[in-house]
Amino acid sequence: MAVETHRFEVSSKGNSQVINLSDGVEACLAGGNIQNGLVCVFVTGSTAAITTTEYEPGLVNHDLKAALEHIAPEDGRYVHEETWHDDNGHSHVRATLIGPSLTVPLVDGRMVLGTWQQIVLIDCDTRSRTRAITVQVVGEK
Amino acid sequence: MAVETHRFEVSSKGNSQVINLSDGVEACLAGGNIQNGLVCVFVTGSTAAITTTEYEPGLVNHDLKAALEHIAPEDGRYVHEETWHDDNGHSHVRATLIGPSLTVPLVDGRMVLGTWQQIVLIDCDTRSRTRAITVQVVGEK
Amino acid sequence: MAVETHRFEVSSKGNSQVINLSDGVEACLAGGNIQNGLVCVFVTGSTAAITTTEYEPGLVNHDLKAALEHIAPEDGRYVHEETWHDDNGHSHVRATLIGPSLTVPLVDGRMVLGTWQQIVLIDCDTRSRTRAITVQVVGEK
Repeated sequence: MAVETHRFEVSSKGNSQVINLSDGVEACLAGGNIQNGLVCVFVTGSTAAITTTEYEPGLVNHDLKAALEHIAPEDGRYVHEETWHDDNGHSHVRATLIGPSLTVPLVDGRMVLGTWQQIVLIDCDTRSRTRAITVQVVGEK
Repeated sequence: MAVETHRFEVSSKGNSQVINLSDGVEACLAGGNIQNGLVCVFVTGSTAAITTTEYEPGLVNHDLKAALEHIAPEDGRYVHEETWHDDNGHSHVRATLIGPSLTVPLVDGRMVLGTWQQIVLIDCDTRSRTRAITVQVVGEK
Repeated sequence: MAVETHRFEVSSKGNSQVINLSDGVEACLAGGNIQNGLVCVFVTGSTAAITTTEYEPGLVNHDLKAALEHIAPEDGRYVHEETWHDDNGHSHVRATLIGPSLTVPLVDGRMVLGTWQQIVLIDCDTRSRTRAITVQVVGEK
């Protein structure tokens, strides 16, 4: 049994941009030795989230953004913005509801994702950000 | 320390049917030897989700479906549907927001769930599906 | 490799009160010996949720509650309430959508949280509750 910590960064434009992390996570796994266990993909920060989706343009560029806009509208009233004189209250709310962490079983060196199921970062902030992704793997070599 | 991989399938009708997985997960644990650690319950695919709820008919057959219909209406506009000529844009959005993974502490052979807290699959797709559930356990015998 | 189980309780007022658990979780880690691995924070019960947020009054006392009220209104129709003659249908729906579990990578004794990213309990129930939090740590000393 072992623990392997991998990290990588992604550049995002914010505004609920959806970024495919699957290749990045798989590269981390290929650079390690654990074959069976758990893979936790985590984004540091309170305005971004990790989940899975089918990474295709309709969902990624329109449909998910529309749902998030419905849940926490960009031009809604946020006391966070009144307090801190910023504009990302909706970003915090969206990220909090989805959450910053995803755990995936690793079986014989492969994550049990579907063909059309990609690991994604949703960056809900209102500006470009560089995001630090931690891929923590616990299991057997 | 060890890793144990269990799998089982469930048949769903889709349309945000909520299916109780607790018995299936407990049967996996009973068939293994790990007594303390983490249990990750994961559904492969991008139109289904895993979470916990009180598995009682009101919540399961009406209230959760009504909330999901509010968040991502079945008859909303989805570019995913326009692109692929299908009808499950809302299914993808709902599954993405809830997420496909749940991790539960295992203590002395039992998951720390409440009496009225069941592990559930929510199948958001628009047709019957057979869903592959992976139960990955990492811990001590 | 080892597994360490910690538990603590928090008192909440319900009504989607957001409670900062970061200090409590860090105290658990300080009382254990695992330095690298995974930390799973789990709330037992079906009307509360665990996630991360920036713990500041605007988000915590207004913005998150407003979003949850939008997603599952307190005065909406819930068959759960009609069946059980209670008033917490919205509590169950909110908790189910967010989920009861959060997994965070632990690296060199520290969780990879951001400075403004706290682990929080959102207690969606309609009354005061004492909540049991399990902090399960799997990894290397």
